[in-house]
Amino acid sequence: MTSEIIVNGRRYAAPSEPTVVVCIDGCEQEYINQAIRAGVAPFFASLGERGAVLTGDCVMPSFTNPNNLSIVTGAPPSVHGICGNYFFDPEQGVEVLMNDAKYLRAPTILAEFSKAGRKVAAVTAKDKLSALLGCGLEGVRFSAEKANEATLAQNGVDDLLAEVGLPLPAVYSAELSEFVLAAGVWLMKTMRPDIMYLSTTDYVQHKHAPGTPLANTFYAMLDKYLAQLDAMGAVIGITADHGMNAKTDSIGRPNILFLQDILDARFGAGTCRVILPITDPYVVHHGALGSYATVSSPASLLAEVTQCVAAFEGVDHVLDNRTACARFELPNDRVGDLVVLAKRLFTLGTSEKSHDLSGLTAPLRSHGGLSEQQVPLLLNRPVRRESNARLRNFDVFALALNRVI
Amino acid sequence: MTSEIIVNGRRYAAPSEPTVVVCIDGCEQEYINQAIRAGVAPFFASLGERGAVLTGDCVMPSFTNPNNLSIVTGAPPSVHGICGNYFFDPEQGVEVLMNDAKYLRAPTILAEFSKAGRKVAAVTAKDKLSALLGCGLEGVRFSAEKANEATLAQNGVDDLLAEVGLPLPAVYSAELSEFVLAAGVWLMKTMRPDIMYLSTTDYVQHKHAPGTPLANTFYAMLDKYLAQLDAMGAVIGITADHGMNAKTDSIGRPNILFLQDILDARFGAGTCRVILPITDPYVVHHGALGSYATVSSPASLLAEVTQCVAAFEGVDHVLDNRTACARFELPNDRVGDLVVLAKRLFTLGTSEKSHDLSGLTAPLRSHGGLSEQQVPLLLNRPVRRESNARLRNFDVFALALNRVI
Repeated sequence: MTSEIIVNGRRYAAPSEPTVVVCIDGCEQEYINQAIRAGVAPFFASLGERGAVLTGDCVMPSFTNPNNLSIVTGAPPSVHGICGNYFFDPEQGVEVLMNDAKYLRAPTILAEFSKAGRKVAAVTAKDKLSALLGCGLEGVRFSAEKANEATLAQNGVDDLLAEVGLPLPAVYSAELSEFVLAAGVWLMKTMRPDIMYLSTTDYVQHKHAPGTPLANTFYAMLDKYLAQLDAMGAVIGITADHGMNAKTDSIGRPNILFLQDILDARFGAGTCRVILPITDPYVVHHGALGSYATVSSPASLLAEVTQCVAAFEGVDHVLDNRTACARFELPNDRVGDLVVLAKRLFTLGTSEKSHDLSGLTAPLRSHGGLSEQQVPLLLNRPVRRESNARLRNFDVFALALNRVI
Repeated sequence: MTSEIIVNGRRYAAPSEPTVVVCIDGCEQEYINQAIRAGVAPFFASLGERGAVLTGDCVMPSFTNPNNLSIVTGAPPSVHGICGNYFFDPEQGVEVLMNDAKYLRAPTILAEFSKAGRKVAAVTAKDKLSALLGCGLEGVRFSAEKANEATLAQNGVDDLLAEVGLPLPAVYSAELSEFVLAAGVWLMKTMRPDIMYLSTTDYVQHKHAPGTPLANTFYAMLDKYLAQLDAMGAVIGITADHGMNAKTDSIGRPNILFLQDILDARFGAGTCRVILPITDPYVVHHGALGSYATVSSPASLLAEVTQCVAAFEGVDHVLDNRTACARFELPNDRVGDLVVLAKRLFTLGTSEKSHDLSGLTAPLRSHGGLSEQQVPLLLNRPVRRESNARLRNFDVFALALNRVI
């Protein structure tokens, strides 16, 4: 078997010990910090002494799909093409989910290691990510959401509920993420994969602030499973797809700028098209409200639209396609004409009538902006660093495979 | 008696009912939000229906003294001159605290109302603010810290501990702020001031994240006293001097850039002088670490120093004196040559050996940067707004006196 592979121009040493990368969805660093303070996260607390506690920048937009794909390709969206959960497909002329593997423009580290003969497993919370993360992967891959449907032929495993020993979790639950971790521990015991990727969901983080009881309970659960993987001798790299911040006023009402309404009122209905790339099939817990939007606009109006949007309190940046794609390493053909970023406490919506906020049973917490870019980058072994250069969440496989001591 | 006064170019209607402005030191909006969620802040929760729940920007740097002075003058630091707790006084050629009233360049709303014959009271937590806030004030003014030393001649009240019914609080305590609120309620019962300013301390916020038990206990305490003031018929305006954010990595270690060490190593010891305007006599709970610093540098090196500092991860902006003073309305003669702002999770220090971090018994939380600029702006009455223009925390007196319905 080969001792290393090259994926998207980066070298990855083949693992001599099982290597697990965990993406904790929506893991603002403060969640870990507060769980440690509450005394419920001894594994996380131990990493300062025995491992590496670093901070990395996630890719923009700070959403789930772009970042999961960056982590498994080791590359920014300009390389892998996934720049949102949702986009306006100029080829089809329609707004579509970016869940299909046909949108992926780069091979994954997972697929390449599996093709090189290594045992690879990928477990995600929601099924929406399975097709992208599993693209080209010859091994085990399944979602907790559809664990009951997994078959040997399709997923490389079957009878999952009995094997993992947990019931099928609800899609909006902490248990969906717990199933991912429990399945990871089961896989490590039974199959002992060379490379395993575990990706949770941020249902808890959208609902609960760092240090509050249910957040601490969730991180205690993660801590317990990570400690088990650690005890089984795995090299573990932990990062997040994005952070998470409150997006409300002092009494918990969401701060929303309805961009489509604003632009329709100013330039005429439908003149501009606002796209919210946070949109996916599961928006109940955040109402499709994040801090990042793209706008398509007639070229003749671009300057005026920019000025109009930038004038609103709560808007952090309005960047044209070229500037945004250069700065954030995004694929120019999938971003629209303008990228709008909101400030930490604000979100961007389309039109007021399009957002169903009835599912917001807790004050809105969300992500998408630069304020959610800094995420944990943790390893259970010390790492060699060759410089103090900026780290990215998508360096986690390189750190875990090439740099642990 | 006059029906209005003009202070620093702004008109303030004389109050027909007692008007209380409360500055909750370090009140990131999320503290209130989480206390409401925990069910311990019914007064705050009620403001959405019966009052006004707005957000304002504090002045930069997001520190205590500049913002308290902006609130009581209704003006930015370029007008009142107080641009830090601490600065390099070019006249004396030394670094000094900016606590002395001689540094104040503008009259306060409190002083002007007292001179116009209105009953005015100002109560602060720490004594450091008394001289500045009390400047020209003919009425009641004292600090909780030195409540036992208050005399009729000096402070307009005496025998304070017995009157308020609380023991002298420790300077590092939640009780220091409680004393301020309790004294406010006592003053409202006994003297019924026309105008009262109550300013707390952020000891709790530096130690405890929003939604954690001691933070909720603190906001429950505030809520109880505010409800009492409300029940006595006061118009209440509530704001903050600045927000508060975690400044650590995932396991609670402070993120610090020691600027003086960096500049000494690069340009020679003492070539540049780094000033931390967060510095005051009470730094145990934050180690004098905030997200704002100023740098004095030889003119010939300015471009190089800027480039050197801006290259570090964690640095948000490096602005020259002219740019920073124009953007943040600061007094050019008191700011140094460069203003350095850190990102949300980072702080700026001088040299490693100058910071005593032994008092950091909890993971560092602090302020000073743009990430702590958005603060609550709450009133217990509805307000008329004439536009959606950006609000500032120092609009609170104008809102409470001129705009309540």
